[in-house]
Order: sequence, then C-alpha cells, then structure tokens
Amino acid sequence: MNRHVRMARRPSGKLLAADLELAEAPIPEPGPGEALVRNTWLSIDPSIRIRLAETTPNGYLPPLRPGDELSGLALGTVIESRCPDFAVGDLVSHTLGYREYALVGARTQTIGGYGAASRIDAGDLPPQWFLGPLGSAGLTAYVGLFEILDLDADDTLWVSSAAGAVGVLAAQLAKIRGATVIGSAGSPAKVAFLCDELGIPAFDYHDGPLPESLAALAPGGIDAYFDNVGGDHLTAALDILRPSGRIALCGAVSGYDGAVPQGPPNLFTMVSKGLRMRGFRAGSFLHLEKSMRREVGRYLADGRLVYRETVFDGIESASTALPAMLSGLTTGKTLCRLAF
Amino acid sequence: MNRHVRMARRPSGKLLAADLELAEAPIPEPGPGEALVRNTWLSIDPSIRIRLAETTPNGYLPPLRPGDELSGLALGTVIESRCPDFAVGDLVSHTLGYREYALVGARTQTIGGYGAASRIDAGDLPPQWFLGPLGSAGLTAYVGLFEILDLDADDTLWVSSAAGAVGVLAAQLAKIRGATVIGSAGSPAKVAFLCDELGIPAFDYHDGPLPESLAALAPGGIDAYFDNVGGDHLTAALDILRPSGRIALCGAVSGYDGAVPQGPPNLFTMVSKGLRMRGFRAGSFLHLEKSMRREVGRYLADGRLVYRETVFDGIESASTALPAMLSGLTTGKTLCRLAF
Repeated sequence: MNRHVRMARRPSGKLLAADLELAEAPIPEPGPGEALVRNTWLSIDPSIRIRLAETTPNGYLPPLRPGDELSGLALGTVIESRCPDFAVGDLVSHTLGYREYALVGARTQTIGGYGAASRIDAGDLPPQWFLGPLGSAGLTAYVGLFEILDLDADDTLWVSSAAGAVGVLAAQLAKIRGATVIGSAGSPAKVAFLCDELGIPAFDYHDGPLPESLAALAPGGIDAYFDNVGGDHLTAALDILRPSGRIALCGAVSGYDGAVPQGPPNLFTMVSKGLRMRGFRAGSFLHLEKSMRREVGRYLADGRLVYRETVFDGIESASTALPAMLSGLTTGKTLCRLAF
Repeated sequence: MNRHVRMARRPSGKLLAADLELAEAPIPEPGPGEALVRNTWLSIDPSIRIRLAETTPNGYLPPLRPGDELSGLALGTVIESRCPDFAVGDLVSHTLGYREYALVGARTQTIGGYGAASRIDAGDLPPQWFLGPLGSAGLTAYVGLFEILDLDADDTLWVSSAAGAVGVLAAQLAKIRGATVIGSAGSPAKVAFLCDELGIPAFDYHDGPLPESLAALAPGGIDAYFDNVGGDHLTAALDILRPSGRIALCGAVSGYDGAVPQGPPNLFTMVSKGLRMRGFRAGSFLHLEKSMRREVGRYLADGRLVYRETVFDGIESASTALPAMLSGLTTGKTLCRLAF
C-alpha cells in the first residue's frame, strides 16, 4: 500500500499533528509517459502551511480541503517506468512528497515554479542535499542574495530565521562573499549555533524589542534584509535600513501558522529612504540552479559552508515534523526520510 | 514685514485651517553669500502634512513644533543679493515657501533631496510650471514611471490620485509613451476630467470596493502601479498585479492627514507573484531634471499634455489651501500665488 499524509481537518490557530492524518491507497500504476517513484526523502517546508488555511494569497496555489493529500518537494528512486526520460534506478526530484510512492510525468503539479520531475546525478553526495543546500533551499538563498538583493561585500545584511533551512545558507553564503552578516533566530540553542559554530553574530528575537537587538549588532544600520519572517521583523527592518536599502521577501512564516498576517505600518519609510523590496520564489530562477550548485558545492566540499539537518524517520513522522518545524523546534533543513 | 505661515497647534485628526496661522516678522537682511528673494509662487504639497504630526517616519525630516514656520517648494525673484550665484531679478526655485520673503544661500534647508536654491530660466513659459510639470511634480512622475517602474508600452498601469499634481502627469506621460493607463480619483468631477478631457479611463474610489472598480477597468490585471495613496489602494494593487508586477511608492496620502497608516495585510503576494516595490523621492533624481524638462516641455508645447492648476491667492490663503488639497478639493497642481 501507498501510505500518504492528508489533511484531516482545517487547522484552527497553530497547526497540530492531529490536523493531519496518515492514510493508505493502492500503489498507483504508471500510465504512458509516467514513472513510479519510491520516495526516499521528503522536504518539510513551511510553505505547505499556507495551503492548509481557508484561503490562499492571490497568486498562490488553491487551499487544500480536508481529505486532500499534501504535496511537497521530495526525492525518490524510479522503480517502474513508462516514460522515456526516466529509467529504473534513477534518482528523481519532484513535487509529490508526503507519500511513499508517487507517479511522476506530464501530470506532475507545480509548486512555486518547481514543476516536472527532474533527474538528479548525486554522485558521491548525500542525495538529500538536493532538497537542501544543492536544491530549493540553496537556490532560494542564492537567488535572494545575488539576484534580488544584489549583495555586495560592502553590505551589512540581516538574515531572519538564520538557523532555518534557507536562512542558514543565506547567512553563510553572504559571509563567504565578504558581506557583514547578522542573524536572528528563535531559541538560545539556535543563537549559539549561529554565533559559536558559524561565527555569525545573532540574537534571539524573544530577548527584547527587535529594534534594540538589531541596533546592538548593527549600530550603523543595515543595507539589506533577507526576510523569512515578515510581520514585526519586516517592520524593524524598514526602520533600521539605511537609505537605498534593499529587502528580499523570501517568506513570511510569522503569518503562516494561524496568525493574521500584518502589513508593516511603517511602509512609508520606503519612500522617505528610497528603499526597494522584492518578493521571489526560487522556482522562477531554475536557470541559476547550475551556477548555484557549482558555488555551494565548492563551499560544502571545502568545509566553508556548514549544513545542518533535522531528520524525522518514516512517513508516519511527517505529521509531527511539519508542526515541529513551524514552531521553530528544528534547526537547519527539516527532512523526513521515507526509505533507504 | 514678512508674512509667513506657521504651525499654530498640533493637528488632531484632519488638518484644519485653524491649526496654521499667519505671523509677521521683519524682512530679513541677506548676509554674505545670501540673497533675498520675494516669493511669487508656493507649491502646496501633501508631504508637509507629515511634519505636522507628533513624529515623522524614519528617514524623514523631523516634526515641526507649534510656532515653527512651514517649509515648501517655492519660486521667487531676487530683490537683493550678496551671493555671486544670484543677481537681482533672477527667478529662483528653493525650499523656503510659506513666507513672502526668503533668504536663500548656503543655509537653505533640504526637502526630499531638493536643496540649495537654483536659478530658473523660464523663458516665455509660465514660471509656476517650474513647480509643476517642469518642476518637482514633473520629475516625480517621470522618475516614477521610467526609473522606478521601468514602464513599457506593453504595460497596463494604474495611477492613483490621478487627478492630483503628480498623478495627472504620470497618467498622461504613461499614455503618451504607449502604455494602457487607468486612473482613480476621489470625486465625480475629477473622474470626468480624467475620462472626458484626458481620455484616461478612471473611477471614483468612493463608488464601491476597489477590487471591483479595478477589475472593471483592467479585467486582465495590471503590470504596474503608481502609488500616491497607500492603505487600501496599495492592498488592492497587490491583489490585482500580475506576476512580476511593479509598484512605485511615491506617496501615501491616505496615511498623512490624521489617519493611522496601515500596512497591506496581503504583502505576501509579493512573494507568491514575484512583485517589486520601490519607494522614491524626486529629489534623489535631480540629474534627470534636464531630460524630463525636454520631454515634458515638448508635450506641453504641442498640447499632448494637459496641465491643470488650482490657484489660491496670497500668503493668507495658504492655511486654507493645504487642508483643501489634503481633503481632495483641488484638481491638478495646487499653488498659492504670493506676488505678481
């Protein structure tokens, strides 16, 4: 049977494991042009939370309904193929996670620009890196820094959620490229990880008013902000940004998990200081994946880039992993290992 | 005596004429490096309202206190000079409006990037055009469209406050350059002006929910938004913008006159649709003034660009003109004629 995770009920407030449920269905048969994949790794991303709400933002995928299977980026191995693009044994990256077996091919749905399944040549590398630093997390960090923020070695950059899957890569990549980087995170352990292991000055956003914490680490202000949080973090960034500063809107996790999204009341500072803000999704920049993999791969190989995973085991753990990640209980990339 | 307008008391809610007062002081004597200017035209701009509040946004000039003279862009004629840059009889543009006589020179304050006084060669043109279509209003429209929005002839553009000083220029310039333009304004007369005289489809934002009014005029969505209003207008723009759309934040008059500024609750659409937003002030783009004057001057001369003024007479009318303009009672550029 094909075990999969579906929505049990619409979450009210923060997502609970009981809002999701494990279900079973027969393992599907590949039709013409399709391949059957046994999933090995599932990427636990905050964005799926958006589709568990009653309505989704304009431009986003429609909300899921109770009973619908969740989707998410995943890796798997082709075990049966009626598709000329995939041979049995191929490692494939696709968007049909949250299930043990998936049919990939023409009908594969799109997530944030990530669409059709693609073959991965992992070589000697841990395959799950292609969901993390060499996959969507890496591309998101790379695009945010170098395409959206146009980061320069002279810049002082703030990365929020800096111990998260994307933030930890963004903070390190920016530092390697010579920028001055400060980070924020949501626990003392994460702050210690950032400060002690990565050498990135960081603060816990629970520790006091954001403007004060920021001013302590960046007394001269910042030039660029990599936003994974939104809400009060974005408001604080608008206040501390220097004239002509830039903001990359990557995500807004403060508004995902049951809270009402708040727009920054000080948006007018964009006029008074001539600021720029741009939202993006890595899936719109897949043409940069190759150069990202070259650069990030080099830093991983020579040890300059530290990559950390929080791994849950088995499809049955996915309904715990997602709320845990949303509550800030995981560090780095959150994954479920579905099979060996 | 030098009559001038000062703040009488801090406005509570909408600005009232009684929050301002006329006062007198001796006509100042120019010191070394200064020239005495008799002001002829005062530009009534919404932005001075920002400085009448208790606090000003980060990056902005400090708040005025009761008793302080207002400042604003103005034109005048040099009547006495101890400055080699200005001769008696010169027409000068500067930032010390709201008074009948001003000392210009090294001490002249900066407003939004506009700083030191500059000589104007108006030729046969009405001099007040150098506060309007050939001055800061023209430069604001020009920069917003062509530097910030990077407007293309294929684009569908929404201009809010499209019958205001800047909006009316932005809407027409965009149309002349080939873009599809829709406008919004705050009265039936303004909408009639836009539709009938300028040929720009427009709606009154009082007439119903903004999303419906916008969808009626731009059923396929918009590519670019020239924001003079903020608040609910910006929220509606975020919803109707097509993927990769752009927003130029020029002003946010909805938040100036006593209302609490509101950030758009749907800012996440910037991520889901890959939108860009950039705030600006014309004073940061003075290097483009010459090319703006060349282009706008040509359109004014050949009649393709219609320019409308609402003119109040005398310094004693300034304390009425400003609240009238903020309440939407004026069309096009609002001016006070201080002398002939």
